[in-house]
Amino acid sequence: MTLRAKTYRQLFASARSDGHLTACDRVIVVAILASVAVAIIGTEKTFAAENRSAILWAEFGFGIFFLGEYCARLWSVAECPGPHGDWTKRLRWMRSFFALIDLFVVVVTLVPFALMGAPILRLLRLLRLAALLKFGRFSMALKALGSAVIERRYDLYVTGALAMVLLLSGATALYWAEGTVQPDAFGSIPRAMWWSVITLTTVGYGDVSPITPLGKMLAAVVAVGGIALVAMPTGIIAAAFSDAMQTYRENLPPPDQDHTTP
Amino acid sequence: MTLRAKTYRQLFASARSDGHLTACDRVIVVAILASVAVAIIGTEKTFAAENRSAILWAEFGFGIFFLGEYCARLWSVAECPGPHGDWTKRLRWMRSFFALIDLFVVVVTLVPFALMGAPILRLLRLLRLAALLKFGRFSMALKALGSAVIERRYDLYVTGALAMVLLLSGATALYWAEGTVQPDAFGSIPRAMWWSVITLTTVGYGDVSPITPLGKMLAAVVAVGGIALVAMPTGIIAAAFSDAMQTYRENLPPPDQDHTTP
Amino acid sequence: MTLRAKTYRQLFASARSDGHLTACDRVIVVAILASVAVAIIGTEKTFAAENRSAILWAEFGFGIFFLGEYCARLWSVAECPGPHGDWTKRLRWMRSFFALIDLFVVVVTLVPFALMGAPILRLLRLLRLAALLKFGRFSMALKALGSAVIERRYDLYVTGALAMVLLLSGATALYWAEGTVQPDAFGSIPRAMWWSVITLTTVGYGDVSPITPLGKMLAAVVAVGGIALVAMPTGIIAAAFSDAMQTYRENLPPPDQDHTTP
Amino acid sequence: MTLRAKTYRQLFASARSDGHLTACDRVIVVAILASVAVAIIGTEKTFAAENRSAILWAEFGFGIFFLGEYCARLWSVAECPGPHGDWTKRLRWMRSFFALIDLFVVVVTLVPFALMGAPILRLLRLLRLAALLKFGRFSMALKALGSAVIERRYDLYVTGALAMVLLLSGATALYWAEGTVQPDAFGSIPRAMWWSVITLTTVGYGDVSPITPLGKMLAAVVAVGGIALVAMPTGIIAAAFSDAMQTYRENLPPPDQDHTTP
Repeated sequence: MTLRAKTYRQLFASARSDGHLTACDRVIVVAILASVAVAIIGTEKTFAAENRSAILWAEFGFGIFFLGEYCARLWSVAECPGPHGDWTKRLRWMRSFFALIDLFVVVVTLVPFALMGAPILRLLRLLRLAALLKFGRFSMALKALGSAVIERRYDLYVTGALAMVLLLSGATALYWAEGTVQPDAFGSIPRAMWWSVITLTTVGYGDVSPITPLGKMLAAVVAVGGIALVAMPTGIIAAAFSDAMQTYRENLPPPDQDHTTP
Repeated sequence: MTLRAKTYRQLFASARSDGHLTACDRVIVVAILASVAVAIIGTEKTFAAENRSAILWAEFGFGIFFLGEYCARLWSVAECPGPHGDWTKRLRWMRSFFALIDLFVVVVTLVPFALMGAPILRLLRLLRLAALLKFGRFSMALKALGSAVIERRYDLYVTGALAMVLLLSGATALYWAEGTVQPDAFGSIPRAMWWSVITLTTVGYGDVSPITPLGKMLAAVVAVGGIALVAMPTGIIAAAFSDAMQTYRENLPPPDQDHTTP
Repeated sequence: MTLRAKTYRQLFASARSDGHLTACDRVIVVAILASVAVAIIGTEKTFAAENRSAILWAEFGFGIFFLGEYCARLWSVAECPGPHGDWTKRLRWMRSFFALIDLFVVVVTLVPFALMGAPILRLLRLLRLAALLKFGRFSMALKALGSAVIERRYDLYVTGALAMVLLLSGATALYWAEGTVQPDAFGSIPRAMWWSVITLTTVGYGDVSPITPLGKMLAAVVAVGGIALVAMPTGIIAAAFSDAMQTYRENLPPPDQDHTTP
Repeated sequence: MTLRAKTYRQLFASARSDGHLTACDRVIVVAILASVAVAIIGTEKTFAAENRSAILWAEFGFGIFFLGEYCARLWSVAECPGPHGDWTKRLRWMRSFFALIDLFVVVVTLVPFALMGAPILRLLRLLRLAALLKFGRFSMALKALGSAVIERRYDLYVTGALAMVLLLSGATALYWAEGTVQPDAFGSIPRAMWWSVITLTTVGYGDVSPITPLGKMLAAVVAVGGIALVAMPTGIIAAAFSDAMQTYRENLPPPDQDHTTP
């Protein structure tokens, strides 16, 4: 097996059927996670000001690493099966969605943006993770979860509609009861809906809460209604997830079957 | 088939057995949702002041649309099966509950109320949605949910009674422990019940919370009791909902059976 | 059947096997609930000051009613089966736990306490409700729930021990991290436990919350741990309740069997 | 049976097969819990200042008690089966993990630390509890729970990954929407993650909450997402716990089998 074929097998999950991550994949996953972590911490100004040069060097290092990986992929993709020539295959790969993300990540990392300029762009590196895990076990679990949710979509529609009615009724009730007493918080139905969402999900920040006896009585009813609101989707999602993991386990390839390269 | 018969089939869900929404129904549903959305946003004074004329025109447009729909219904209802004359059928329909709602919505929309005068009346348009969906799939799901809840009504009584005892005990305990320290928040049992509801549902606004060590110890017990309070109705509601969706799926007409008009 | 026998059958649930409430029972239940409601509202000083005489008259009325009921019970208890004389039966009944509660309620209501003096004593009327419902369906449901909980007591021990460890670890962690920064809130482990309980139950008042980065990181871990803390007892209680209601339904007497007095 | 053999049977759970706690074990468990309680309360300065001598005496008493227990263990461990001599067995036991904890606890309690100096070290006494309960029923339940969680580790990985994505998306969205309006709360992604965790777990302290309409809309979506975040691990943990208790009950030795010493 040539070096190019080995590289191809290492870098392209589609070349293998078992869904295991290769050693090479693991290094790339760690590099992506590390670069995302640096991007997250880099948004904190007090930290970034002190460690400016360290962050810049880290970003530069990640840029070189991702550029190298991109070149290695471009070179080895010529090994993919098919009747076309090497460069045809390479061009076709370059135009694929995930290759464009790869290129985008390299450009974003290397082009000297202002350090704080575009942290959200840097988080798009997580999309690369999605690309890497596309053929792995994690992706199979997500697909199973997705189809379990789709199977229960009517349940979610009904729950969602009931939740919307509860949300709107709660907001209207408090708008009616406290609209004139606390105009900032309940002066319109859209404003009251913020209170309504935060109460029905039982988050309850307390930045907005009723102060009149009538408002408190209505809010108590809404808070109790929140139990029902949480109960129904929770049951659906838990059941869907349970089904999904069942399907996932059944479809799992037997362990270590294709692990040893012949 | 005459135009009137076609209109009748389009506008009256009871004329069809499959519970699907016709193209016409869908347009009306969208119009109702849009008019409700305009009514909700219109309660926000800062927005309403800037877009006064746009909102008025939109309301006027919805009024004309609903009036047209009402007239079309009045005209085509004569097609409904039965031995009576056209106008007898029309008068009978006009006196039905949902036709009165339709008329009410038209009047509320067109009569020049002060713009901000009666936003809650405008939300009653959602009742029209209920009328429209009465024969649809959504309604079947709700009916199944309703009967599943009724079957479990004793469970809900028992849970409700336990919850009331827990609520009252918590309020009395804090009234006893903090009534003199925080008279505004715990100076009477009804006042303490506001705290009790917000704690037991785990919303926890924080506008009211105990400050003495004894009060905090009692509140900790109540907060832990809230887990049990939430657990029991949640289990009942989730099970009822799960049963309801099962019943609903079994009663669903086979897809696309009556979809094509012969 | 004599009047005394009829009164006995009406007032003593133990004289009947079906567990239904008689018309008489229902009147008494309503009177107890009303008297409790008056006692609750009476603790609110602003309301009590304005309606002083109305509350006093209501309390006096309840006192007369409960006294009359007590006398009727005393008179009719002589009908209970057994070889003893009338007064022996009456004395034995008077010494029973629930008869003492009845007498206590009468005394508490009629003796002219200061109106606000002992509202919590008045809430003990709810114990009378327990006495009344002792043989009813509600009581059967509670007994089933009780035995289902006892069957799962080891589960609750294990959960409780894990919860205590989580609670104590969280409190110790925050005491260590924020004890010197916020001495009022985290200056000792008992103080930090108030925060720990309110966070782990996901109530989250917000009267106490970490402010240092390290404290926030530890608090985030504790908050996530709260999901597990809530999940385990919730599952146990929901399962116990579900089992209890199943047992209850199976033990229920067939409806309307003993409803008609022969 | 010699006194030393009896002491050995009393103090070493591994000498018995049934997992019941002996009378001696129970006394030690109570002493550990009491010493932990004293250590916890002792961190509260207002209490410690007033009861300084009582706490010191209690600590001294616990120190003597734990020292006596350590010596008794050291003396009786010679009874453990094996071909080695008494002191070889004792040295081997002294080097075991749990014996080192025992020694550590004795030293920590007796060496005159400043009273407030090392309360967290004193909490390590709970580890002794772990040592004592190592062979008991509680430990069997924990082992069953542990293996049930391990069996579902992929479910927890998937849930954890989805939760991390939800957490990071929420933090990034609010950083983008409110970063400039509330720089203290949302000025960087790590700061916004504090808000994100507290909202997604539905704790909702309210120390940080969005104030712009856009921020509130995004926060409402995140709060609703929290229902799903809580639903999935809750279902997994509840199912794992339920399985664990089932396994535990099946593996439980028949009651009172080895309770009577022959």
